[in-house]
Amino acid sequence: MTVFSLHDPARRTFASDNYAGAHPEVLAALATANGGHEVAYGDDVYTARLQQVVREHFGPAAETYPVFNGTGANVVALTGVLPRWGAVVAAATAHINTDEAGAPERMTGIKLLTVPTPDGKLTPELIAREAWGWGDEHRAQPLAVSITQTTEMGTLYTPAEVSAIAEFAHAHGMAVHMDGARLWNAAAALGVPFGAFTADAGVDVVSLGGTKNGCLGAEAVVVLAPERVTGLVYLRKMTMQLSSKMRFASAQLLALFDDDLGLRSAAHANAMTQRLRSRLEDGVARGMLPGLAFTQDSPANAIFATLPTGAADRIRERVRFYDWNRARGEVRWMTAWDTTDADVDAFVAVIAEELTRD
Amino acid sequence: MTVFSLHDPARRTFASDNYAGAHPEVLAALATANGGHEVAYGDDVYTARLQQVVREHFGPAAETYPVFNGTGANVVALTGVLPRWGAVVAAATAHINTDEAGAPERMTGIKLLTVPTPDGKLTPELIAREAWGWGDEHRAQPLAVSITQTTEMGTLYTPAEVSAIAEFAHAHGMAVHMDGARLWNAAAALGVPFGAFTADAGVDVVSLGGTKNGCLGAEAVVVLAPERVTGLVYLRKMTMQLSSKMRFASAQLLALFDDDLGLRSAAHANAMTQRLRSRLEDGVARGMLPGLAFTQDSPANAIFATLPTGAADRIRERVRFYDWNRARGEVRWMTAWDTTDADVDAFVAVIAEELTRD
Amino acid sequence: MTVFSLHDPARRTFASDNYAGAHPEVLAALATANGGHEVAYGDDVYTARLQQVVREHFGPAAETYPVFNGTGANVVALTGVLPRWGAVVAAATAHINTDEAGAPERMTGIKLLTVPTPDGKLTPELIAREAWGWGDEHRAQPLAVSITQTTEMGTLYTPAEVSAIAEFAHAHGMAVHMDGARLWNAAAALGVPFGAFTADAGVDVVSLGGTKNGCLGAEAVVVLAPERVTGLVYLRKMTMQLSSKMRFASAQLLALFDDDLGLRSAAHANAMTQRLRSRLEDGVARGMLPGLAFTQDSPANAIFATLPTGAADRIRERVRFYDWNRARGEVRWMTAWDTTDADVDAFVAVIAEELTRD
Amino acid sequence: MTVFSLHDPARRTFASDNYAGAHPEVLAALATANGGHEVAYGDDVYTARLQQVVREHFGPAAETYPVFNGTGANVVALTGVLPRWGAVVAAATAHINTDEAGAPERMTGIKLLTVPTPDGKLTPELIAREAWGWGDEHRAQPLAVSITQTTEMGTLYTPAEVSAIAEFAHAHGMAVHMDGARLWNAAAALGVPFGAFTADAGVDVVSLGGTKNGCLGAEAVVVLAPERVTGLVYLRKMTMQLSSKMRFASAQLLALFDDDLGLRSAAHANAMTQRLRSRLEDGVARGMLPGLAFTQDSPANAIFATLPTGAADRIRERVRFYDWNRARGEVRWMTAWDTTDADVDAFVAVIAEELTRD
Repeated sequence: MTVFSLHDPARRTFASDNYAGAHPEVLAALATANGGHEVAYGDDVYTARLQQVVREHFGPAAETYPVFNGTGANVVALTGVLPRWGAVVAAATAHINTDEAGAPERMTGIKLLTVPTPDGKLTPELIAREAWGWGDEHRAQPLAVSITQTTEMGTLYTPAEVSAIAEFAHAHGMAVHMDGARLWNAAAALGVPFGAFTADAGVDVVSLGGTKNGCLGAEAVVVLAPERVTGLVYLRKMTMQLSSKMRFASAQLLALFDDDLGLRSAAHANAMTQRLRSRLEDGVARGMLPGLAFTQDSPANAIFATLPTGAADRIRERVRFYDWNRARGEVRWMTAWDTTDADVDAFVAVIAEELTRD
Repeated sequence: MTVFSLHDPARRTFASDNYAGAHPEVLAALATANGGHEVAYGDDVYTARLQQVVREHFGPAAETYPVFNGTGANVVALTGVLPRWGAVVAAATAHINTDEAGAPERMTGIKLLTVPTPDGKLTPELIAREAWGWGDEHRAQPLAVSITQTTEMGTLYTPAEVSAIAEFAHAHGMAVHMDGARLWNAAAALGVPFGAFTADAGVDVVSLGGTKNGCLGAEAVVVLAPERVTGLVYLRKMTMQLSSKMRFASAQLLALFDDDLGLRSAAHANAMTQRLRSRLEDGVARGMLPGLAFTQDSPANAIFATLPTGAADRIRERVRFYDWNRARGEVRWMTAWDTTDADVDAFVAVIAEELTRD
Repeated sequence: MTVFSLHDPARRTFASDNYAGAHPEVLAALATANGGHEVAYGDDVYTARLQQVVREHFGPAAETYPVFNGTGANVVALTGVLPRWGAVVAAATAHINTDEAGAPERMTGIKLLTVPTPDGKLTPELIAREAWGWGDEHRAQPLAVSITQTTEMGTLYTPAEVSAIAEFAHAHGMAVHMDGARLWNAAAALGVPFGAFTADAGVDVVSLGGTKNGCLGAEAVVVLAPERVTGLVYLRKMTMQLSSKMRFASAQLLALFDDDLGLRSAAHANAMTQRLRSRLEDGVARGMLPGLAFTQDSPANAIFATLPTGAADRIRERVRFYDWNRARGEVRWMTAWDTTDADVDAFVAVIAEELTRD
Repeated sequence: MTVFSLHDPARRTFASDNYAGAHPEVLAALATANGGHEVAYGDDVYTARLQQVVREHFGPAAETYPVFNGTGANVVALTGVLPRWGAVVAAATAHINTDEAGAPERMTGIKLLTVPTPDGKLTPELIAREAWGWGDEHRAQPLAVSITQTTEMGTLYTPAEVSAIAEFAHAHGMAVHMDGARLWNAAAALGVPFGAFTADAGVDVVSLGGTKNGCLGAEAVVVLAPERVTGLVYLRKMTMQLSSKMRFASAQLLALFDDDLGLRSAAHANAMTQRLRSRLEDGVARGMLPGLAFTQDSPANAIFATLPTGAADRIRERVRFYDWNRARGEVRWMTAWDTTDADVDAFVAVIAEELTRD
């Protein structure tokens, strides 16, 4: 036998959907794709099949480029829509601005033009604050908008909101990128097909996440408007995002599309957040959770809340999660595809216990 | 059930060790590491265990940074030993020069100073051709040497050859990087521990491959001389090589170290190449393979040979492989961890048949 | 005869100190440095002399690297204090953020962490908003602060304000860069030696401007804390900022230091702004300039004001200047080393005429 | 009084045309362009006039972008013809490969594919060695050829040779860049208009040098095939090559075009090299210069020769020049626009003296 188990497979947290493991059906897909020799670097049958499946969900123009991770997907996608002098308008809280260590700037020279938002969501009005100066060589040229669905604040764009942004962007010569690290959660929350809030709403290129939703590690750049995106095949390779044994990345994503596994997993994660939020709101309403308040809506799988720092720290010692803004006493609680009712209920109990400790 | 098999798991080729799938024990390790929540981005127990295991093999100073692919490992490793004005002396045939789409130059601004070699191997004399000009601001400063083990030409450095290069490099203030995409094949061929031709021979940083040797996709940067390497934790993230669910990358590499799986797999691949080569040399000696000649030694898992282009094309239609230099009629035949005796013998028969067709 | 005059040398504007030409003494210095052969790329006697002179003004540790332009100086200086994973905290209005077309990000991968300010000036409190997250690989590491003296809003840091910023920065492991495109104007306005608000106040590296103050085109990176800055000689060359006939760049800067030409020129430009501002304030006080209001203090050579857009456009047709923020009706009026009393008085008359037109 | 003279204006060398100063008519042009306010950043009348003049010399499609230096011109020009995944085929001796500190790679991610040449000149056959692999994402895509006129080895392309290269390049989808740091010397040597060996010969973009031919510092990117070049206005700014007081750069270049000053200056420099070479060849023929041999033709203003190292060092102590390849005992002797007959004759005497010393 090989590697023996070093961890407790029963432990679950509210830290991040990245803490969860892989769905068993995803592991099974790896085994299915294994064996024999398949052409490397994407010329295999699983990647070809993925291409077909993505078109069924995102429209017939869609082109799919599996990559390694979300930062990679974002950098490849944005670089594909921007000339070297391009800039991207994004929310100040966007992952590309706050959590990618400057990869967009450093790897392919993308300038970010960021806008503060109350809830992680851009609007045409907010975009307009940075969308100006075309033709002025001194200003990095705003030629793309990047929105995150669901956002880093756990919020959600409706199809109409995406459409409004895309109309504004296209009217000003800007491409639209959607960071969909949690695109399945959005689809599940909105209850509409992927196409409704991507291709049909005017999005040009999507970073389609798989990892947070039950894959081991698989993301893809999905091009929806090929006429606005160039060189992805080269860009993926030169940004070090080209998998040699790509069949395994593609098989993971295929598993998510198969029998709606991804949608069901995301819907479950969302439901766990709804359960957590409603239990907590009940507690708040009944005065049993002193000091707890919510700072964002929770349509998907994240809750943002403020609570006394001391209590937060005691809770975290028992069940792991992350501070969002320690200065404000704001925390983030996330559920995943594997969160259970019991996990939620136990977490609520811990929260209640620690909030009422003294 | 999910994704159904789309390929023929019985088909094998001599195209590339990247065509082979994952070793079953590697898949098993993924299952073992699955379940429950583990801290993301490398703060998990499997990555911690990998760090220990690598130290057992590469020496107590070793630091291990799992990354996604070989190009990523090379770029992270080289960037870690070079200031922004640094350049790397490498063989003209080096993967970093010929097969990475310019990633070293484009991602972190590494200038390559390349030297033609007869066999893919650098020597102090060859390095000296480009190792000059320190202090001259007009010249990209040669501050690292990169060698590949086993080389892109299928050849092998002895520990003494590596030592000679490292001595020369260090004497001139240059760091030594080893691209070990096929490091297991080298260890198997040399019959010595990893340390003997890496840390003990003066190598400062290694790109340790796993993918070609039975992983789905797992490589690591292994720092052997921490005093010569800076910022890897940041460089890995900003180059988009940081896996969120890193436990799965680490588990794959752990599987290779476990019970010598990696060494056994590589030794098997090497043995299959020896079998192929000796069968072919026999055939040549007996005049049964007209037009076939070898262009490189084959100490590991690759054979480079010339043969008439027409015959090569007919052989390829039956068993896939790659041209190396079509103008010269040179081909590359590779074996993998899953190549069988029967595969080799059948391939020899095909070669013989097509070489004697008319 | 050669090139004949194509322009009206009597025309002057309030658009930018970049519109002004070269001071005759600067042209004379070029002629002095001309003739015969001097070693290229900075190994000439004028560059050596500049090095001495800068040390007299900025302290004995100062190292001087002439470059071509302000953007070049800023990129070279910041790159010299930052590792590849570094980020710079800067005011949102900083030239490096708004007017360099993304050069810091694109050329050397510098992430900017910007902070809104009321007046273009950072404070420790404002810096603290982005100065956090050290050691977190997901966050671009805040390792430098960049301030502009005088600022892009025409305002000025006192030596004490600079000291407070430097103390905060150094306490947090951050280097301090000063963009001194208008450093002479600052020195003239403060009435203290350069050292008092640079080296003595804790600044580590300065972009020393010459162009806006009467040079044809000459700037320099002045290193004040050599222990915090590395590789400038290489960085200058690789960023394409190394002049071959450097004696001419150095001679221009020498001319500014000679007999206080630069200080006198900047003081004159500042005085012209004071004259303009006081004339206008008079007019406002006497109700003769309806709709005119000032948005920033004017300690140096720039005035920021709001006025009705129609009037602004009419004024501009007669005397050129730039909108600063057209949405707000905000304009910028600048004086230069060659602005005359008569220019100011005529401009005031034009403003008054157009503001009272209907 | 301003800067006083620190150097000996009578000293001249054979080190580099960069050692020479500015032609008096160039200085006069600066004075002519001075005075009053002109729009910054290229919207001035001198830059407009330069645009017209360049069109007279290079054809009606030509677009002119003044920049600071030759490295800047090359990087801007090459970046303008290449997508992010492009590579440039160049001679191994090309300035972009050997003397720009990696600027092409580091600043805009240009991969160089270099070819050894006997004389610094590419041919279609030599280019073909690296012009392959289009469509293969692993290979940096060869999408441009860069040739230098006159070359770094002092040699010269005929219009027919340039045409042959351009035909080959265009047939393979590659753009053609000409590094014309010494383009005037080429025009003078060939005795044909600029257009004959640039636009008419199929060159797409030129780096037009001025500095080495009597300017203080002025170069320009001249686009000849606008349909192959994109974004230069943005690329120039973001690469820190945009001059604020551009009138002075343009005036310098105008001076070279005016009354054929540039052509006359280059012809003079060439003639001085012919004089030096013929004097030396005479000496060699008469056995008076033992150990001296020539390694390249000298159609323009450079001589490459081998001589005993000891003698070379003694000569250099008396008249400065550079080693080209010390291992081979090869030196480079250059003349400039200001070299005199007497300089040449004195240098020949020194060479003869030192070669016959013992």
